[in-house]
This record gives sequence, C-alpha cells and structure tokens, in this order.
Amino acid sequence: MATAAQPLRRNTSNVHVVAMNDGVRSERIDTLAAEEPLEIRVQGPGQEQRPVAVTMRTPGGDFELAVGFLFTEGLIVPSDVARVAYCDNLPGEDQQYNVVSITLHRPFDHDLLKRNFYATSSCGVCGKAALDDIEVRCAPVADGTRVSTETLLGLPTALRRAQKVFDRTGGLHAAGLFDPDGDLVSVREDVGRHNAVDKVVGEHVLAGNVPLIDHVLQVSGRLSFEIVQKAAVAGIPIVSAVSAPSSLAVEAGERFGMTLVGFVRDDRLNVYTHPERVET
Amino acid sequence: MATAAQPLRRNTSNVHVVAMNDGVRSERIDTLAAEEPLEIRVQGPGQEQRPVAVTMRTPGGDFELAVGFLFTEGLIVPSDVARVAYCDNLPGEDQQYNVVSITLHRPFDHDLLKRNFYATSSCGVCGKAALDDIEVRCAPVADGTRVSTETLLGLPTALRRAQKVFDRTGGLHAAGLFDPDGDLVSVREDVGRHNAVDKVVGEHVLAGNVPLIDHVLQVSGRLSFEIVQKAAVAGIPIVSAVSAPSSLAVEAGERFGMTLVGFVRDDRLNVYTHPERVET
Repeated sequence: MATAAQPLRRNTSNVHVVAMNDGVRSERIDTLAAEEPLEIRVQGPGQEQRPVAVTMRTPGGDFELAVGFLFTEGLIVPSDVARVAYCDNLPGEDQQYNVVSITLHRPFDHDLLKRNFYATSSCGVCGKAALDDIEVRCAPVADGTRVSTETLLGLPTALRRAQKVFDRTGGLHAAGLFDPDGDLVSVREDVGRHNAVDKVVGEHVLAGNVPLIDHVLQVSGRLSFEIVQKAAVAGIPIVSAVSAPSSLAVEAGERFGMTLVGFVRDDRLNVYTHPERVET
Repeated sequence: MATAAQPLRRNTSNVHVVAMNDGVRSERIDTLAAEEPLEIRVQGPGQEQRPVAVTMRTPGGDFELAVGFLFTEGLIVPSDVARVAYCDNLPGEDQQYNVVSITLHRPFDHDLLKRNFYATSSCGVCGKAALDDIEVRCAPVADGTRVSTETLLGLPTALRRAQKVFDRTGGLHAAGLFDPDGDLVSVREDVGRHNAVDKVVGEHVLAGNVPLIDHVLQVSGRLSFEIVQKAAVAGIPIVSAVSAPSSLAVEAGERFGMTLVGFVRDDRLNVYTHPERVET
C-alpha cells in the first residue's frame, strides 16, 4: 500500500485574549487547539472520487483518521486500502490538506453509507438494533488478555504525560493504546474524542496490526457507545475511561465480550463488564 | 403548532459494577446516564415521512432536540414547524419513543442535507468555507447585551446545581441558557454536548422565542466550532465554557460578532472575542 507523505501541520494556533483574574483585567496570548474540517473521499477501480464524510478535527494524523473512520464505521476492511493521499489538485494549501482521498482495491458501495446511517428506518431504532448492526462487523474479542488493577490505575497519568498538545492548550481529547503491562503503544489527540480513537485505530490498520487483540485502550473523558463501537470493530478487548460510561456503552461492552472500566481516579476504578480480565 | 405529549422516559439506568478501591474489591450498583439512538424524520405537505438523521442521545426533551437540530443545522426555520410527534405506528415502546417525526408547513428539500454536508466538495474544505456556509444562515447578533465578570464567574456553579442527572451519574454534558443577570432560563443535559445545546435551542424554537438576543449560553466542557455554530444560528450573543475553545470556535465567534468566554474557573476567565460585552 502506498501512502504519500503527510506534512507537519500546525495543531495549535495563538490568539489574543482578555483575561480577568480576581478582578484584574489583562491582555495576553493564549494557545488554542486547532480545529479544521477534514473531507474524506473514496475511490474504487473505475470509480470517480466521491466524498463520504466531513469531520471537524485537529490537523495531524489525517491519513490515520480517514482510514480509521472508514474502518470503525464498517465501510471498509483493512485489505481494501490501496493508497491514501491528500488531494493535490485543489487550490490553496489549506484546502489541499483538508481533503484526504482513499483509493481502494475494490469498488466502494456508496449505498452502504445510507444503509449504515438509516439501517433501521423501516422498523424504528433502538439500542438493540444499533448493537445488532455493529455485531455483524466485529470479530469476536479475544479472551486471553489480563491486566492488573495497578496497571489500569496508572494509565490516565501515562496518557496525560504523552499528550503534547494538551499541555499547551488544555483543549484536546486523547486516546492511548497500551499493552497489558501498561507500556504505551500509540497516542493521538483531537478536539473530537471519536477522532482520537479513529486516529489510533487507523494507525494500526495502516500498519497491518488489526485486530488489536492484546491491548488496552485508555480514553480521556467519558465512554460513549460510539467509542465502544470503534474499539469493538478493532478487536480491542479492554477499554478504560477517566470518567463515566453511558448505559449503551455498557450494554455494548457486555454483548461484545469487552471489559469496560470507568471512573479511573487516584486509587479507585469501576469495572462495568467482563471483570474476569482485571486482576486485583 | 401542535405537539403531542412527551412521556417521561428514563434518563438513567442502574448496572452492577465491580469496584476496586485502594486494593479492596467490592460489588455494588452504579447509576449510568442513559444513551439511546434518536431518529429524526421530516415530512412536508404531500411528502412521505423520511429520515434525516440518527443521533445518540439521552432520552428526554426529544422534541426539543429534533427541532433544535434541524434549526441549528440550517435545515428549517422556526415557522416551518407544523407538528412534532413520536411515531406511533412502530412496534415496541422503545422504538416508538426513539423516532420523532416533524411535519412541516412546506415541502422539505432532502437535497439540502447532501448540500449541507458536502457543500464545498468541488473546491475542497477549509475553516473559511465552513464559516461562509454558516454565515448565510445567521441573523446578525445583537450588540446591546452586557454581562458582568462576576455574573459569568457564577454560571458554571449555577449550571452544575441545575444538572439533576449529572449528580447521579457524573456522565452528562449540560447547556444552560441564562439572562444577563445570571438567572437561569433553561437547562438541558445529554451524553452529547451538541445535543444539550440543540435541546435548549429547540425548546425556544418551539416557544417562538428565537432569536435569543439577550442571553448567555453556558456549556460544560470545551467549546467547539459546532457549539458556536449552533449558538450563532440561534442569535445568542454570549457563549461561555468551563474549558478551552478551539481555534475555529474562536474564528467563528470573531466573525459572527459573538462574545466567547472560556476557562471560567474560580475567580478567573478568558474572553476570546468581542470583550466589549463583558464588564469588569
């Protein structure tokens, strides 16, 4: 698979702010996390390039994001990807680096998109239907992985230490992939929590490492259904979050055989599903 | 405009968890924020009901969410809405209360959806194009509103106090609409931060109060472009967040004449755009 080089993009920008501090007004420069739209286009043999999605993201890891998104949403499998590149026929550098085009080895079914988002429109939608929909795209999660409570308790700090942009902006979500001993494998940051997960997964789709059977995914913030879905499609058996999971996230974890951990703070945590993977 | 009654839905659910606390393992019941898909359907005179979007949300305020979403995404204007109802021809209560149908006074242009999400696909996408796109949907924001620093500093606590579900779950974003004296007008909670804003705005679309010219929107968490977009379409002049804004959120605030406030904590805050509305 050929992928063009990704240029170093600015993932922060500086702005002028008026700060009020204990009644005192001052002016200074503040550093913000960059946010820009990314358009993802897909093209199969004999097909025209067509847009599939636009997502707001922090520049950096765009190829990983595009591939990870298509994969975790069930639109492609890893072996489909032939080439990933920015669109070099667009006017202006900003636009050029906001459009990623993925060339596939097989024709892309654009109706999949519609089916994916409106799959259940004839019979209504519910959490169970959403779970059914994902189940068909997931490999069974491997049973063997074990992680100690001590390792899990250390992951939020390890993730935070690896977040380079957060320190300067305070404005980014992060997703970190760890091995069962708590060693960091990959970390990605983004203004969108789902994008951070897509970037991590996409990196490993491009490297041919999916399913990520013997890994733990640690995320900043809360644990929504969408995050669990993405981890499930990638075959990650353990997902841990600093904050609370939602009801549907827990239902998904239970059904897909995944271990979900939440409220990891100081010396405590909660295991919501499949606690057999967590050793005291 | 006729709206059917909304039943009281469960916005939390209880699950069994294994808690690890300082090396001690115990089992207990934990309360989670509920997350379920909501399908939004639209129907104009002489048209069939068709799905427009599916969003994962916390049940409660579904009519407000559906109307707010269509409005803040530029798909309808308030006077378009004729009737809002759950779909009562679906099997099972869960599915019935996960589909909201909005009947309009005029035909709905389903191509708008496509144009909206792929508007700039022929020339690439960039932050500027995203701002151009929103500008056409926004009324100019009123200049007159003023708010004191003291009032702004009190909003996060006032919002938190009004969050009924957060206290039980720790798992929900919130959006609160306040008047310039800091009195609470509306508060809504959701697993999705954008949904909380859509619920607040939708409530006032249904009540005929939009544009919300003399108000302050306070949100939990970070301030993304999407939140500023939604507030801009609703005509809200001041948006304040507990945490950091993104670069594109600040560009949008600057361009649309809105005052954006961030990092509101204890006795300090930052004003990122149009500080003339904030009095010392």
